[in-house]
Amino acid sequence: MKILVSGFEPFGGSRVNPTEQLIFDLQSLSFSGVEIRTVLLPVVFDECARLLIEEIRSFQPDAVLACGVAGGRADITPERIAINMKHIAEDAPYPDNAGVRPHEQPIEEDGQDGLFTTLPVSRMVKTMREAGIPASISYSAGTYICNNTMYVLLNEIKKTANAMLGGFIHFPASPEMAAAKPGMPSMSQESMLRGLKVMIEVTIEELRALEHHPKRQVGSCSM
Amino acid sequence: MKILVSGFEPFGGSRVNPTEQLIFDLQSLSFSGVEIRTVLLPVVFDECARLLIEEIRSFQPDAVLACGVAGGRADITPERIAINMKHIAEDAPYPDNAGVRPHEQPIEEDGQDGLFTTLPVSRMVKTMREAGIPASISYSAGTYICNNTMYVLLNEIKKTANAMLGGFIHFPASPEMAAAKPGMPSMSQESMLRGLKVMIEVTIEELRALEHHPKRQVGSCSM
Amino acid sequence: MKILVSGFEPFGGSRVNPTEQLIFDLQSLSFSGVEIRTVLLPVVFDECARLLIEEIRSFQPDAVLACGVAGGRADITPERIAINMKHIAEDAPYPDNAGVRPHEQPIEEDGQDGLFTTLPVSRMVKTMREAGIPASISYSAGTYICNNTMYVLLNEIKKTANAMLGGFIHFPASPEMAAAKPGMPSMSQESMLRGLKVMIEVTIEELRALEHHPKRQVGSCSM
Amino acid sequence: MKILVSGFEPFGGSRVNPTEQLIFDLQSLSFSGVEIRTVLLPVVFDECARLLIEEIRSFQPDAVLACGVAGGRADITPERIAINMKHIAEDAPYPDNAGVRPHEQPIEEDGQDGLFTTLPVSRMVKTMREAGIPASISYSAGTYICNNTMYVLLNEIKKTANAMLGGFIHFPASPEMAAAKPGMPSMSQESMLRGLKVMIEVTIEELRALEHHPKRQVGSCSM
Repeated sequence: MKILVSGFEPFGGSRVNPTEQLIFDLQSLSFSGVEIRTVLLPVVFDECARLLIEEIRSFQPDAVLACGVAGGRADITPERIAINMKHIAEDAPYPDNAGVRPHEQPIEEDGQDGLFTTLPVSRMVKTMREAGIPASISYSAGTYICNNTMYVLLNEIKKTANAMLGGFIHFPASPEMAAAKPGMPSMSQESMLRGLKVMIEVTIEELRALEHHPKRQVGSCSM
Repeated sequence: MKILVSGFEPFGGSRVNPTEQLIFDLQSLSFSGVEIRTVLLPVVFDECARLLIEEIRSFQPDAVLACGVAGGRADITPERIAINMKHIAEDAPYPDNAGVRPHEQPIEEDGQDGLFTTLPVSRMVKTMREAGIPASISYSAGTYICNNTMYVLLNEIKKTANAMLGGFIHFPASPEMAAAKPGMPSMSQESMLRGLKVMIEVTIEELRALEHHPKRQVGSCSM
Repeated sequence: MKILVSGFEPFGGSRVNPTEQLIFDLQSLSFSGVEIRTVLLPVVFDECARLLIEEIRSFQPDAVLACGVAGGRADITPERIAINMKHIAEDAPYPDNAGVRPHEQPIEEDGQDGLFTTLPVSRMVKTMREAGIPASISYSAGTYICNNTMYVLLNEIKKTANAMLGGFIHFPASPEMAAAKPGMPSMSQESMLRGLKVMIEVTIEELRALEHHPKRQVGSCSM
Repeated sequence: MKILVSGFEPFGGSRVNPTEQLIFDLQSLSFSGVEIRTVLLPVVFDECARLLIEEIRSFQPDAVLACGVAGGRADITPERIAINMKHIAEDAPYPDNAGVRPHEQPIEEDGQDGLFTTLPVSRMVKTMREAGIPASISYSAGTYICNNTMYVLLNEIKKTANAMLGGFIHFPASPEMAAAKPGMPSMSQESMLRGLKVMIEVTIEELRALEHHPKRQVGSCSM
C-alpha cells in the first residue's frame, strides 16, 4: 500500500511553512505495511499541481493527502470540495510566488465546476476529535494554490477513472506565524503531526476496507 | 528570590484545566537562584482569592503570577487591569463551581474601580513574541473568578504597600477542550509552558532591576 | 423581461425571517420594463426547491435570485457555488422545519458535485460596495436548505440547457435576531433591500448585454 | 434637565464618522422636559477631553453621553470602565489626528487606574435589546481617544464630587465604512439613532429616579 503526502514551500512573506516541516517530520513515523512518500510543492499556480501529478504517475499511490496552511483557521480542516477557479482578489496582500494574480479563471477549461474529495473526511475529523485534536470539515478550499492543487488532483482521479483516494487538508498557522499576527489562531507542529498521523491511519483503514469491498464506484464521494 | 504561580481547578463541564497541568509541569523547570511555589485555586468566587492571599502571607513571594483559561482567545494574554466587579450574565452557561451567579457586585466594598497589574506585561508579551509564542496584552480580565482573583491580589498589594509584582495571565483553551468545540482556538501544553517560562524569566529580570533601583514607587504601573 | 425572487419562512426558533420581509418590501419597488415575481419557500429539504422549480416552470423567468439568511455573516454574500450534499451536523441546534436531519446525502443522485452560479456575482458585489453596502462573494452556501435550493435551481438550468441566470444570495441576521444573540453581526432591512435592488439592477444589465451577445454558452460561469 | 451628547470627527482615513452624523440627527428628536446639547470632538489625545470638559462647565448638564466608533464590533457597546492609560500600539495603522502615538502613558498623573461609568449601562443594554437593537456591555474602551475622553470625563465627575451621570458608548462601523473592509460588521445610521434615543430615555428615567431618592452616593457605580 502506498500513500503520497505533499506540503508547500513558504509564501506570503513567511520564512517557513508548517506543512514543509510536517512532511519532513512524517519521515520519522512508520505505518505497518505502508510506503509513505512525500513531495514539496511550489506556491505557483498550475506548477504546484503539475509536480504533484508527475509524482503520482511515477509513484502510483493508493491515496494522496495534499497539505497546506490556511492562516486564520483554528483547527485542522480536511476539504470537502475543490472548485474550478483560480482567483486572487485585487486587495489580497500577495500574488503567488511567481508574481501571478489570476482573475476568476478556470483551472481546467472543460472541467466540472466542483469536485468532491475522495478521502474519508468525516471519519478523519471524528477520529481526530476523539484523539483531542481540533478538527472540522471545510466546505471551501478558497481559490488560491491549495484549491488549484486539490482540483487538479481530483480531476486527474476522475479523468483516469482511478479508484485512488485523494484530497486536501488545511492546517492552521504555526505558533511562529501567529506570534507575528496578534489574535491569529495557531497549532503546534506536534499537534499537526499527530493530526496527520491520524488522517493517514484512517485513510489506511479505508483503503483496507475497499480492498474487501471492491465494488466501490470510481470517483464517488467517500463521505 | 521567590515566585508564586497559581492555576485553577477544572470548571464549566471540562474534566481538565490546562493551568492545573501548567503548574504541575512547572515543577520540572528550575530558575537559578529562584524558589518557585505553586498553588491550585478553586473556581469559587472569593474563595479563589482567599486561598491565594493565605499562600502569599505564608510564602512571602517577590512576585505572583496567577494563571487561568480564557476559552476563545488565541494567544497568551497577560491582563492589564482588574475591575471591582463580580458578575455572571444571566445567559452565561455556568455559575461558579459553588453554584453562585453574582450580579454586578463589588469585590471589595471600598475598593477602587480598577487596579493595574504590577507585572511587566509589555515586556512579557514582546519577549514571548520574539520566542515565537503568540501573545497579546488584554485590557479586560472579565468579571468571573479570574478577575476576582486578580483584583483581590492587586488590592492586597496596594493595601499592604507591598512592592510585590503581581498580576493575572489568561491562556487559550487546550487542544482537548477545542476538539469538543469546533472553531475554538487552542494552544498546546508545551507552548503554554514555554510562554509561562518566558514570563517568569522576564519577571525575574524585572525583580533584579528593581533591586538595583529600589526607588520604584509601590503600586505604580510597571508597563 | 421577468425576474423571480424567493425568500424563506422563519426557522431555528426565530419568529421572523428578514428574507420574507425582503420579498414583501420588494413589491413596492419597480424596475422599468421588468416584471418581478416573488415566492416564499418552506425551510424543508427538497420541498424548498420543488416549490421554486414549479414557480420557474409557470413564470418562465429570465433570472432567479433565491435569498436566505446566514446568521453570523456581516455582509451580503452572493454564493459562487452549490454542492450536491444535504447535511445537518449532529450537534447543530435545529433540524429543518419538518424535523429532518440528513447526513451527507446527495441532493441529486447523478448530479455533479458542484454547480457554479450563473448570476454576475462579482459585478453584484462590486456595485453594492460602491453604493456603500457591505458585500462579499461567498464560496460556500453550506449544506442546509439554502444550498439545497441553490443546487436544485442550478441543476434545473443545466438539465434544461436553459440560459437563465440563477443563484443564491445570503443576507446577515436582522437587528432583531442579533439583539437576542450578543455579538452577532446584523444588517438593517433597509440596507438589505437596497442591496437586493442593486443586485436586481446588475442582473437586468447582464440580461440586456446577453440579448445583444446571444452566443454566451449555456450554463457557463458568468463571473 | 440637561443632557450633553458628544460625537467625533472622522479619523483613520475615513471621510465620515457615524457619531458625527448621530449628533446631527439627534437635533431632530425631542425629549419632553429635557434640553439636549451636542458637541463634536477632535480625534486628538487630551484635546478631545479638554473640549468636552469646557462644554460641561458651561452647559452644566445632568448627564453626559460621549459617543465614538469601534470598528469591528457588531453591536452598540456602552463602556463599563475607563483606564488611566494612553497607548497606540507600534503596529496600529494610525496615530491620532495630530500625528501623536503615545506609549503607555498615564492620562492623569495622580488618577486612579480605572473609573467606572456612572451611566445605567445594564439597563441601557437591556432596553435596547428589548427594542430589537443589538447591544452589549463592553469592559474595555481601549487605550485610544475614546478611553481618553471617557477617563477625563469620569475623573472630572469624581474630582468635583459631582452627581452627574457620565460615560462612553461605542457604536459599530457604518455600512459605508464596512463596504470598504469586507467582513467588518456594521450598523445602519437609523439603528444607531434608535439606540441613542433609547439610551437617552433610560438616562432620563434614571435621573428622575435619582431626584426622588437623592441619597445616591456621588461617583458610585449605577449598574
